[in-house]
Amino acid sequence: MIDPGSTYDLVLTGCTALRNNAGKDPRFEPNTTIAITDGQIVAIGPDGDTPPACAELVETAGLVAIPGLINCHTHAAMTLFRGVAEDVPVHSWFNKYVWPMEVNLTEEDVYLGTLLACAEMLASGVTSFADHYFYMDAAARAVEESGIRANLGWAFFSSMGSEGVAQSADFAQRLNGSANGRITTSLAPHAPYTVNDEDLELAAEHARRIGVRVHIHAAENLAQTESSVDSRGITPIEILRRTGILDAGTIIAHGCGITDPDVPVLARYGTSVGVAHCPKVYLKHALPPLTPIRALDAAGVAVGLGTDGVAGNNTLDILESMRLTAMTQKYVEEDATWMTTGHAINLATTQSAATFGLPNDIGALEVGRRADIALLDMSGAHCQPIHDVAAALVYSARAGDVVTVVSDGAVVLRDRKLLTVDVAAIRAELSGRLDRLIDISHGDQIQRYDP
Amino acid sequence: MIDPGSTYDLVLTGCTALRNNAGKDPRFEPNTTIAITDGQIVAIGPDGDTPPACAELVETAGLVAIPGLINCHTHAAMTLFRGVAEDVPVHSWFNKYVWPMEVNLTEEDVYLGTLLACAEMLASGVTSFADHYFYMDAAARAVEESGIRANLGWAFFSSMGSEGVAQSADFAQRLNGSANGRITTSLAPHAPYTVNDEDLELAAEHARRIGVRVHIHAAENLAQTESSVDSRGITPIEILRRTGILDAGTIIAHGCGITDPDVPVLARYGTSVGVAHCPKVYLKHALPPLTPIRALDAAGVAVGLGTDGVAGNNTLDILESMRLTAMTQKYVEEDATWMTTGHAINLATTQSAATFGLPNDIGALEVGRRADIALLDMSGAHCQPIHDVAAALVYSARAGDVVTVVSDGAVVLRDRKLLTVDVAAIRAELSGRLDRLIDISHGDQIQRYDP
Repeated sequence: MIDPGSTYDLVLTGCTALRNNAGKDPRFEPNTTIAITDGQIVAIGPDGDTPPACAELVETAGLVAIPGLINCHTHAAMTLFRGVAEDVPVHSWFNKYVWPMEVNLTEEDVYLGTLLACAEMLASGVTSFADHYFYMDAAARAVEESGIRANLGWAFFSSMGSEGVAQSADFAQRLNGSANGRITTSLAPHAPYTVNDEDLELAAEHARRIGVRVHIHAAENLAQTESSVDSRGITPIEILRRTGILDAGTIIAHGCGITDPDVPVLARYGTSVGVAHCPKVYLKHALPPLTPIRALDAAGVAVGLGTDGVAGNNTLDILESMRLTAMTQKYVEEDATWMTTGHAINLATTQSAATFGLPNDIGALEVGRRADIALLDMSGAHCQPIHDVAAALVYSARAGDVVTVVSDGAVVLRDRKLLTVDVAAIRAELSGRLDRLIDISHGDQIQRYDP
Repeated sequence: MIDPGSTYDLVLTGCTALRNNAGKDPRFEPNTTIAITDGQIVAIGPDGDTPPACAELVETAGLVAIPGLINCHTHAAMTLFRGVAEDVPVHSWFNKYVWPMEVNLTEEDVYLGTLLACAEMLASGVTSFADHYFYMDAAARAVEESGIRANLGWAFFSSMGSEGVAQSADFAQRLNGSANGRITTSLAPHAPYTVNDEDLELAAEHARRIGVRVHIHAAENLAQTESSVDSRGITPIEILRRTGILDAGTIIAHGCGITDPDVPVLARYGTSVGVAHCPKVYLKHALPPLTPIRALDAAGVAVGLGTDGVAGNNTLDILESMRLTAMTQKYVEEDATWMTTGHAINLATTQSAATFGLPNDIGALEVGRRADIALLDMSGAHCQPIHDVAAALVYSARAGDVVTVVSDGAVVLRDRKLLTVDVAAIRAELSGRLDRLIDISHGDQIQRYDP
């Protein structure tokens, strides 16, 4: 509860706060004060007659406060390729567009693309993202400057030789805990179909040694699983188990091809393994089925929300991922009572925090958690009237309704103005780079997609 | 082209304008001037050195101009029930929530709910909507005041007796062409499973006599079609044909249960029949399949975009309907090359205008069309950089990016401020009505859902 005798760093008063989101029946508590010191929520409770003493007071009456949203899987700098590869099958998407274009990337491109991504995410209430890309020191610089929280993994293929896993491990070790703790890291092997078992085993060993997770694409679609079973007799999830990846703790990106027998395998690892679900790209890539969330949920496997890279998803909007997850789950399960609004909110908060690897630090407005908070203005015509705040949040609210964001205790978005990143300057800087970035006349590609 | 010697009512300069959207390969023309007089686009072409003479000039440099969006099927006043009936199967949705709540509606409620809907739509770039509801004189008043364009139909069931169709016809005749031509009308029988053949025939006759269309729910899902075939030996579409509804011209809401043999039947009626596709509610109601757009497209049947009522769809956001249509079509057809961004834009403009019944008056930025124009600011981080404007419009832009809207030649939204409706006043007025509106302790309902 709020202590009237204390002086806090930052206090938010008057908001309607999301609570009890560890289960599927959240509450929204009106007239709430949140007190923050040293980047942490230190008190939360009913508004007093006067605000408590504090260095900075933000009046948030009329706003809905939710835990900062979490993007459990993306390739942030792919903002650079937004809208370039539309309306093509997944093989062409990789082999004719994305992997040829990625040959063009420089370290400075990745910095700018990641900074733009951080701006987009913070402005839409996303305060944490799990990133899986290249030139990750540049990405870390963007994270540091923008004030966002990130789990960063330097991606590698076995085609890079022993250099790949070594670089990923070196980065994970050097950067873990940096940016005042806002940066955590992962080992980031690309996928079981591009990284061999020896390198997967090495990645798992490094991850255990450093004390971080492995962030990897696996069972991205059912065709990949079938191909794995055909060629090796085991599923991609079984490869992760045998190589020690699951034992190290894992963010599994996509998992649309997770089979029934895979589910109890994953469940054995409890909260150290989570699946990042990015529905927009599964729809656009036109590859049914979706991630088997119902089976994973029944087995207690965490499912977090993600966007994947912008070259596929076109935005980094986790409110959209939550809405799409709720809608598509009902449709594919042919059950309107499944994936309730409360469940969708649980995925976006508690389960995403678990998938991200910080189950006790983010994902809830609770004392002891880091102060990552998004405040939405739902007074717009498209949200009114509000009979049910959970329904408004899942099905009516838009990223543009986010007006104020606190990240690790600092106000980074105020009245829809981003305080940490100059988007116009990035836009100007990028304009001279775009032609080079999408020029694929060189005929190279960073890797071949043939899972 | 722009005539430097003319004086126009309203001129927009500097925008990037959507053109050529009658096909599936639209262009976006930068540095475009649009000149408007008497509510009509009278010239469109490249910016001159100085803007032409005009009563009102709006500088739109940096904005993307698209034809005002068209909501081909909604029940506007259901904004009143936003978020009340979540996570329930469709039978409960009707019989336990919506149809019991609709007993509570007063004429003033419908006025307020419709006015709120008009505000939401205009602020999100929607300048026309096809409405199917009750107390339609109140809805017309909201349309008149807000400055939006609408096709209004007074809904009826045969359970109302002969009064139902008579009232719908009387309204259609009285209001058609009102609000300076912004209001057109339809006959609005609810559905073939709630309106008997005699009343459908009467509705078709009235529609032909008045010169308007029939707006009706039909083949909303496959179960309805199967039930119709079981009980009567014919599909809902065949009922529409035999009763003369198709011959009168028709907005068919949903059509998810349209069968292969129905498609050539619909195609015979050319542009006088269109299907309104509202994907968000089909996902939420969890009843596959979706509207068979691919078959309808191959046969030349127009498919427009809609939202259905807010009690199911939660918003009146046609950009969201367009995005969902593009994504879900790819997924259900398992073909990433199907429903390209250009095709989705064609549905949202040309085909929606045809479905709405004004194929030559709205849906394009062309000389001779009514001046219904939405201008979007895509400079936000979530749209940048823009390699492809069509992709940005379909997959990145949000309703909140709409900054300026012209409806029938009048600026109704300027810098995101709605000039015609006071949303805060509606919100305040509604707050005292909400408990009564959702109180279903009376045990009545306006109709029973048992198709």
